[in-house]
Amino acid sequence: MFCENPNPNPNPNENVKAAAVAWGAGQPLVIEQVNVSPPQPMEIRIKVVCTSLCRSDLSAWESQTIFPRIFGHEATGIVESVGEGVTEFTQGDHVLTVFIGECGKCRQCESGKTNICQLLGLERRGLMHCDQRTRFSINATGEPVYHYCAVSSFSEYTVVHSGCAVKISSLVPLEKVCLLSCGVAAGLGAAWNVADISDGSSVVIFGLGTVGLSVAQGANLRGASQIIGVDTNPEKGENAKAFGITEFINPNDSKEPIQQVILTKPYGPDGSPSLNLNLLSKTLKGSLFGGWKPKSDLPSLVEMYTKKEIQVDEYISHNLPFEDVNKAFNLMLEGKCLRCVIHMEN
Amino acid sequence: MFCENPNPNPNPNENVKAAAVAWGAGQPLVIEQVNVSPPQPMEIRIKVVCTSLCRSDLSAWESQTIFPRIFGHEATGIVESVGEGVTEFTQGDHVLTVFIGECGKCRQCESGKTNICQLLGLERRGLMHCDQRTRFSINATGEPVYHYCAVSSFSEYTVVHSGCAVKISSLVPLEKVCLLSCGVAAGLGAAWNVADISDGSSVVIFGLGTVGLSVAQGANLRGASQIIGVDTNPEKGENAKAFGITEFINPNDSKEPIQQVILTKPYGPDGSPSLNLNLLSKTLKGSLFGGWKPKSDLPSLVEMYTKKEIQVDEYISHNLPFEDVNKAFNLMLEGKCLRCVIHMEN
Repeated sequence: MFCENPNPNPNPNENVKAAAVAWGAGQPLVIEQVNVSPPQPMEIRIKVVCTSLCRSDLSAWESQTIFPRIFGHEATGIVESVGEGVTEFTQGDHVLTVFIGECGKCRQCESGKTNICQLLGLERRGLMHCDQRTRFSINATGEPVYHYCAVSSFSEYTVVHSGCAVKISSLVPLEKVCLLSCGVAAGLGAAWNVADISDGSSVVIFGLGTVGLSVAQGANLRGASQIIGVDTNPEKGENAKAFGITEFINPNDSKEPIQQVILTKPYGPDGSPSLNLNLLSKTLKGSLFGGWKPKSDLPSLVEMYTKKEIQVDEYISHNLPFEDVNKAFNLMLEGKCLRCVIHMEN
Repeated sequence: MFCENPNPNPNPNENVKAAAVAWGAGQPLVIEQVNVSPPQPMEIRIKVVCTSLCRSDLSAWESQTIFPRIFGHEATGIVESVGEGVTEFTQGDHVLTVFIGECGKCRQCESGKTNICQLLGLERRGLMHCDQRTRFSINATGEPVYHYCAVSSFSEYTVVHSGCAVKISSLVPLEKVCLLSCGVAAGLGAAWNVADISDGSSVVIFGLGTVGLSVAQGANLRGASQIIGVDTNPEKGENAKAFGITEFINPNDSKEPIQQVILTKPYGPDGSPSLNLNLLSKTLKGSLFGGWKPKSDLPSLVEMYTKKEIQVDEYISHNLPFEDVNKAFNLMLEGKCLRCVIHMEN
């Protein structure tokens, strides 16, 4: 049922949009005119409004071999058109994009044990899930341009599977909640869904970017009594307390291994060594997107934001116009930002 | 309140008992006359009835540097005397020993998140938890003999903290349920409490000793559709199906790495690659005693046994008299047994 019969394109010029194209690893992005295909069945085409830069974009840009490519996966936008079979969205709907989708029907979506959809899990080849093709090409030459995480939001328009977008109220500020599309949601979910931090816990967080500080927020909201933040960038300690970090440790400030420094920290009034559990009973959990199932769970996170139950705005350190997208990359490379929100229209 | 005022000993001769003493790593045990102290406050002295050999005893005997020592931790017995302050047990009670205790009052016992009691967690120094002393000495010389896991059941009498024993009905066969003191319970708990295996799951078990085959039993009772057992000992495959293993793999039978062999196995009717999840969303969980809290949880496991809801007897491959304790070690070294139950009296 999916991905058959591409929509005919009624007006080719409507499909030509500006996008920031990465031509090679670590090379500055170039704003190019690209052809953005109309949405295929079960897909939607989105006019991107805001997109923030996440460390994953940077890591992939530094190392990936798939080029040319359009990065960006943390975004909000407005539905411009919908493909055949899409009933969940209509033109004008406000949406959050999500880099892992939720079909709601596969064995894993139904298992209640994972948020890794079998149909719309993490896409690593720069293609769309359902037909393993791209929806972008350089307008002048026709050269295909690859996607990133099936989102590619550093573009005026993008095409995503309808399972990779979440409808949100038009009253929610798109320039803020794009952070719930990945980083802030991932951190909160790691604290709540994955680590399941409880009242009085001791927590150590390695890396105090947006995800780490969102773990801190999540831990703080769950009543953790000690939230130790670890980062080699001394500037990361400055604002960390605003997100719940109770102590900051820079491993470069000590000759001892960091695990020793942490274990010799006092543990609150009773001094109990809660980090020093027997190895045999430890759990190491990896997670993707903090364990959230995007369709099922993101609406309630957005609602928590509108009720001011969670902080989101506070992670935005910079707002930049689209033409300054490379500045966002540089700020992150230098460790000078938390989230840079890129506004597609000034 | 604990560990003060040792009981005076009314009759020294009552304290001299036979115990299998390990004098050095890998050396055959020697049955010696040892002095077993009366129970200190909050402790009980137990007349051991049956004790089965667990791989942990063997591993510690092969490698530990603490000697002389009395191994054995999977046991049943009858309370011979109780120390000051003990109200939970009286002389004549039937008990299971447990190698990790449950005080029920510490932060970790109350957390609901771990079975590692802060007072009675795994004891690694060969001493009793509360006073860091031993209750055994060689009768002829007075030389102290160390404990193993604060149980030391390869002895006619042993002394354990009252938090490290669970009362059981006198109708339950002591020569069978000693296996619930460690191995069978650990495997069932790993399947149920730790991995939380659910209906239709695919499970791979590395190592098909009593613990591995108890994981298989637990997975089977939870409705797992595929239970792959992996062991380098070809004899382990023979009886594995009786415990729920659906396929046996001996890694030595294949040139490919075992993870490749497992991933190329078919996955039931829909062929979905449920083991091939994204790395980011994997969880690695260690557990001790399968996550069971001994006092809270073991009585219900014993009840399941009496109702024939779980298999226990089937793991007993050998029954041996106490004087043949070294034979049990040899059988296990040679991979020729599941559980050898050692009967303290013939």
